[in-house]
Formats: sequence, C-alpha cells, structure tokens
Amino acid sequence: MAVTFRPLLATLGLSALLLVPASAQALEVDKAIEYRQDALRVMAWQLGPMGDMAQGDIDYDAEAFARRASNLAAVSHLPWEGFIEGSLRNDGHGIETRALAAIGDDWADFEERQATLRQEAATLAEMAEAGEEFNALRRQVGAVVNSCRACHDNYRAD
Amino acid sequence: MAVTFRPLLATLGLSALLLVPASAQALEVDKAIEYRQDALRVMAWQLGPMGDMAQGDIDYDAEAFARRASNLAAVSHLPWEGFIEGSLRNDGHGIETRALAAIGDDWADFEERQATLRQEAATLAEMAEAGEEFNALRRQVGAVVNSCRACHDNYRAD
Repeated sequence: MAVTFRPLLATLGLSALLLVPASAQALEVDKAIEYRQDALRVMAWQLGPMGDMAQGDIDYDAEAFARRASNLAAVSHLPWEGFIEGSLRNDGHGIETRALAAIGDDWADFEERQATLRQEAATLAEMAEAGEEFNALRRQVGAVVNSCRACHDNYRAD
Repeated sequence: MAVTFRPLLATLGLSALLLVPASAQALEVDKAIEYRQDALRVMAWQLGPMGDMAQGDIDYDAEAFARRASNLAAVSHLPWEGFIEGSLRNDGHGIETRALAAIGDDWADFEERQATLRQEAATLAEMAEAGEEFNALRRQVGAVVNSCRACHDNYRAD
C-alpha cells in the first residue's frame, strides 16, 4: 500500500508535501503561507453572504444562512496552523504576506483572538441551528466581523 | 446597522463581494474559480498528513489523524459551489483553471462524484472518531484518495 499511495497523492497535487527538498524549511513556510491565505479566503467567502443578508443587500434565507454559519464555524479552526515560525512578514522568506511581525511579539494574544473568532462563529452556528430570529443572528454576524477586525487591526498590514 | 456593516466587511477584504460592477458575471466567475481552488487546496492540506501517516512517512498520531479527518469531512462540502456556470475551462473567461469542459457534459455525474467524496470523508471521520484501528483508517484514506482521483481523471486537466 505504501507503494500505491505515493502516485495517488502525487496526482492530487500533494507531491510537494511528500518530498523533502534541499530547503525543506523554505518550502514549508511557502506552503504554510499559501495554506493560511487559502483558508482565510474560504472563511471570508462563507461569511460574505451572511454579511450581505445582515446588511439587507440580499434577502434573508434561513437555510442558506444556517449552512453558511455551520461552514464558517468549521473553517474557523483551520487557518491558524499556517502561522508557523518564520512565516511572518519581514521574516526574510520573500513571500508576500500581510501577517505582521507583531504577531511574534505577542503570540498568546494572537491565539486568544483566534479563540474568540472560533467562539463567535460557533455561537452563530448554534443560534442559526436553533432557529433564532434574524435580528439576533444579525447582531451575532456583527460579533463575528468584530472578532475578525480586532485581529486585523493589530496583526494584518493594510 | 446597515451603515456600519459595509466598512467592517470592506476591511475584511470582502468589499469585492459587496459591489455590483459593470461585469458582475465576469467578477463572479473569477471569484468562484479562486474560491474553489482555495477550498480544494485546503482539502489537500488536510488530507496530506493522513496520506503521510498511511504511507508511513510520518508516525501515526491518533489525535492528529482524527482532527484531520474531521476537518477534511467539513471541507469536503465546500469547493463545489465554486463550479458555477461559465467557469469551466474554455468558457472564455480567460482565467486559468484545470476544470474541464467535460464537467458541463455530465453535471449529474460530477455531482455524484462530489457526493462520493463527501461520503468517504465522512466515513473516515466517523471511523477515526470511533477509535478504529490504524489499518482500517489507512484503507479508508485510500478510499478517500480514490474518490478524489476518480473525479480528477475525468474532469481535471493534467
């Protein structure tokens, strides 16, 4: 089975993850930055329609909202493992990232803010699942957005 | 509240989702392709370490495996909404994508293959959650990989 897995994974575009190149650390940083940016964009995509509904730009659809909220809660766990050592801006890897060096100055605070987002997103998903009314969901979307912003204000370049 | 949401979402990089540009459809295709590629890469990232464990390239870690399997099952629902009309290769949008026109020839089959992946990933997550033994998990990773490959073979350019 070990023999058959490698080509299978290679066909999935996973071969880069399976190789150990000369500069393994550089590749790791490269991949980690790409991964977290991918995951954060997926998170924004899931949040977007809930923001649109909260703003009244599109009609409120309880089923779509609940699905988005559930997806957002799941995805809210994912990006953070991409913030590995040596992957912040100015770390000399030459890869474009808006993740400020300030993250490294207070990693505990950065992790606390991640936890806040996860909690706010989980609360939103639970509320939607429980069929709470739109005004309450709307306020909770605001809480989620605020938790995103609280982190961006401190740790993301403009 | 409608007034305060817009700048909040704009700071999250969501402003593009909130505007209605002259070529709304072109923007939508652009965003949909980027989104599905992001989500598919996040899926590959989550699958990667389970593949490494299945191959014996890294040590089996039951807790890490179960977390990956749970993440994979959640993410397995996400990419597909990015396959919107007019977003396949050769649809004239000028955006690089490996999604073949063959998808449009048999959309029902494409959706059935998505469902198979979701099912295989859900099964893997349930097995890991239930604490099944490594050899069984390893075989199920193979089933997940096969479901990825079955779709790529038919619908993704090399």
